[in-house]
Amino acid sequence: MAATTSLKHLLGIRELTPLQIVNLLDTAESFLDISKRQIKKVPALRGRTVINLFFEASTRTRTSFEIAAKRLSADAINISVSTSSVSKGETLLDTARNLEAMAPDCIVIRHSAAGAPQHLAEVCNAAIVNAGDGAHEHPTQALLDALTIRERKGRIDGLRVAIIGDILHSRVARSNIYLLTKLGATVSVAGPGTLVPAEFAGLVEQGVRLERRIEEAIDGADVVMILRIQKERQTSAFFPSMREYAIHYGLHPQHLQRAARDAIVMHPGPINRGIEISSEIADGGRSLILDQVANGVAVRMAVLYLLAQGTPADENEETEKPKQKKERVRKTVQVKDKSELP
Amino acid sequence: MAATTSLKHLLGIRELTPLQIVNLLDTAESFLDISKRQIKKVPALRGRTVINLFFEASTRTRTSFEIAAKRLSADAINISVSTSSVSKGETLLDTARNLEAMAPDCIVIRHSAAGAPQHLAEVCNAAIVNAGDGAHEHPTQALLDALTIRERKGRIDGLRVAIIGDILHSRVARSNIYLLTKLGATVSVAGPGTLVPAEFAGLVEQGVRLERRIEEAIDGADVVMILRIQKERQTSAFFPSMREYAIHYGLHPQHLQRAARDAIVMHPGPINRGIEISSEIADGGRSLILDQVANGVAVRMAVLYLLAQGTPADENEETEKPKQKKERVRKTVQVKDKSELP
Amino acid sequence: MAATTSLKHLLGIRELTPLQIVNLLDTAESFLDISKRQIKKVPALRGRTVINLFFEASTRTRTSFEIAAKRLSADAINISVSTSSVSKGETLLDTARNLEAMAPDCIVIRHSAAGAPQHLAEVCNAAIVNAGDGAHEHPTQALLDALTIRERKGRIDGLRVAIIGDILHSRVARSNIYLLTKLGATVSVAGPGTLVPAEFAGLVEQGVRLERRIEEAIDGADVVMILRIQKERQTSAFFPSMREYAIHYGLHPQHLQRAARDAIVMHPGPINRGIEISSEIADGGRSLILDQVANGVAVRMAVLYLLAQGTPADENEETEKPKQKKERVRKTVQVKDKSELP
Repeated sequence: MAATTSLKHLLGIRELTPLQIVNLLDTAESFLDISKRQIKKVPALRGRTVINLFFEASTRTRTSFEIAAKRLSADAINISVSTSSVSKGETLLDTARNLEAMAPDCIVIRHSAAGAPQHLAEVCNAAIVNAGDGAHEHPTQALLDALTIRERKGRIDGLRVAIIGDILHSRVARSNIYLLTKLGATVSVAGPGTLVPAEFAGLVEQGVRLERRIEEAIDGADVVMILRIQKERQTSAFFPSMREYAIHYGLHPQHLQRAARDAIVMHPGPINRGIEISSEIADGGRSLILDQVANGVAVRMAVLYLLAQGTPADENEETEKPKQKKERVRKTVQVKDKSELP
Repeated sequence: MAATTSLKHLLGIRELTPLQIVNLLDTAESFLDISKRQIKKVPALRGRTVINLFFEASTRTRTSFEIAAKRLSADAINISVSTSSVSKGETLLDTARNLEAMAPDCIVIRHSAAGAPQHLAEVCNAAIVNAGDGAHEHPTQALLDALTIRERKGRIDGLRVAIIGDILHSRVARSNIYLLTKLGATVSVAGPGTLVPAEFAGLVEQGVRLERRIEEAIDGADVVMILRIQKERQTSAFFPSMREYAIHYGLHPQHLQRAARDAIVMHPGPINRGIEISSEIADGGRSLILDQVANGVAVRMAVLYLLAQGTPADENEETEKPKQKKERVRKTVQVKDKSELP
Repeated sequence: MAATTSLKHLLGIRELTPLQIVNLLDTAESFLDISKRQIKKVPALRGRTVINLFFEASTRTRTSFEIAAKRLSADAINISVSTSSVSKGETLLDTARNLEAMAPDCIVIRHSAAGAPQHLAEVCNAAIVNAGDGAHEHPTQALLDALTIRERKGRIDGLRVAIIGDILHSRVARSNIYLLTKLGATVSVAGPGTLVPAEFAGLVEQGVRLERRIEEAIDGADVVMILRIQKERQTSAFFPSMREYAIHYGLHPQHLQRAARDAIVMHPGPINRGIEISSEIADGGRSLILDQVANGVAVRMAVLYLLAQGTPADENEETEKPKQKKERVRKTVQVKDKSELP
């Protein structure tokens, strides 16, 4: 695996090196400031075209990518499945090839099928960004979570992170587990037994602890990540009722007494209040849920910026260059696989 | 109540002082010219983000706000309920807080629930603009109506305005009654008895006349405002049939003979031809329906401009400053409550 | 008919002179390069407003127009019927008049009713672009097809073009037949008997050959255009089944043996693989399907550019002027009706 940080696509966290992840986080950090200004716009991607191709509805993620593109001065084009010609029987690859022919620089895709972004990457010259594919990965979510943790804790390495909930359906859990373990955190997960997929067993060796009870997973945790119940995907009865889920796996204040004293709570949203998280926690001082959303814009700016500048720039002299990346890498992160560092 | 014209949000006309209303109208007037140029764009809100959050479909209003934002060089983000994550069970406030975390300068909201914009204003730092909330208010509609009247009549004060129609369901009627009476007009309303809500009785003291018959309301009117039948909200039978409504409350040429000789006719659109208004009137020389639409863009530009510049500007030196506002205030408007003027 | 190339609207190919068509193609050719740059944007239509008013869903065409508008720096506003107020009972003309009042420079309309764009053109000052109206015309599709042919073959005049498929429902076929015969090509068409409308009989005199069998139409063809089966419009049974259609009218490699040795294959998309075209052909070396899509953006840029600059420019000094148009006209095209040339 090369030591380079350059990326052609962002399909998942699994394929990334620790250095690539840190580079994305550092770039995102350098973009955080832009959204705090009155004029929230830099010319970095002026004249570039970003297509948001959403086969699943998502206010939050689509809006975050659209705002990110516009704050970089790119032209953003939204395509949602309900208004698309997909119903006319075209294959995903044909849709992608056709969009590609319109010369976008970046196609951001959300799709219910795991692997859809990978398919596109195989046929497209445009940079492909996975904005969530089935139960596979949601890499920008993991990146914004990591940026949020690093912002508050100053590091990822050595932290204890508990992930609670509907892991079977959660691309968020998968991407986070890949990212956190790559950057040296210890991860424990808990959820209804049927919801923990067998394949996570393979992660045990890498330091992921599977727990049955929420209390055990949270024990000593520095970060508690709550997943949302995917009510709309819950086709069969994995647990008897929402009420029972809330009792056994909903996060309540008493749970946090077992966490570290300065533990933080995160949730990818949208939250189901009173089900997987109590309002007291969601709105409390430990909750970083809104920080996650704010950091999401910066992370998506970073992703679009790094991917769209992949081709040699001839005119973007106005572009802001994130600084001091390598310096920071050595200071704030202790990556697990030293061989991947330069 | 302060004499200042500065606004943080635009939730309704009821909360505005006459001076604030006049300031909005004057600013809108100064923006009218931009849409008549070939290059219909000023850099006033460059780098600002305006989110159009529509929980009810509305081509006209959403398009008007979107065009307004773009002509001010703002980045406009559209979110419509059908493609949003609201169906995932998130509360309105959580949706708003999440959008807020993405650092928009302004959130324009249309919602079927009266008070929804007020709710948002309580939790958001972004400026909230009510683009219609249930049967409560539709302030930009009242402002564009007032701009249209003032453009044609030179004043609001002292005019006699008749409002005809489905007042019970009409946020347009409510906002107009507040605005017109604040600026010194006399308002008479007529509609099917069941359609006139009891609470309007309280307005009688402020000069609103309730009439049973359309002819009585129109008698001597300078302005005749026709409301549209909200067919899609007509859940119970307030009147026997559309045909009977057309006979008793539809506006026909003979009605206008009782109005002032130079009376003008207005309608917020979309019009139901042959129901609440005859085509002869809608397309006739007295009709200002299309002027209202054109003025709507200018009013929304003014609202976005005034709200988004609420924070101290550090970089928008290119911004056009509406001139001579206070001068105009004294000249063209005689506000009712003198104590509110400087 | 005037010799001028200036256009107010683009309603169909039928109304255009050969010189106007060539002017559109030359202008499009001059825009092809923009989408190949890193900064894919020119300021030609800065401050202009383009409304995409789509009463039928179409990812491809709407996206192509939106990208075209944005690469010219115009503000693009999308309105799709599902989120519009059309359901509130407004007439098409009222919708158009209202949008017009917001001062767009151009309204791009797709509608299921033939003639809808013509209706709009009669009441609007904005330039109207037909993006497909019922089974009538789809002029930008014919233009992008012609651009693609000219790019590969160097000319239109004298070529033999076969159009295969569902001609009865095809605005693409109609626009292409008008364009190709105006520019001197010979056109033969084949499709299930019931699918060839009687009116095409009138085109026979102009050189259109009606054939029953696909092999006969393709015999000696330089260009083979495959139409897509409009499954969603196939209300009655024009042919027994998709499978039978595929057997009798689907394009397979053996068909191309009867075409010219360097024949090219085109399809307006989206393609139904295995029905009207085999994957072997669609993905083969003769297929120009993706070139068509790429050229579509350039054609739409040309259309928007030529229509929106119809009014005298006072500020667009930055605009790029397509060069050497007239020179090219005489060199590359032999128009049929010499009297229409200057």
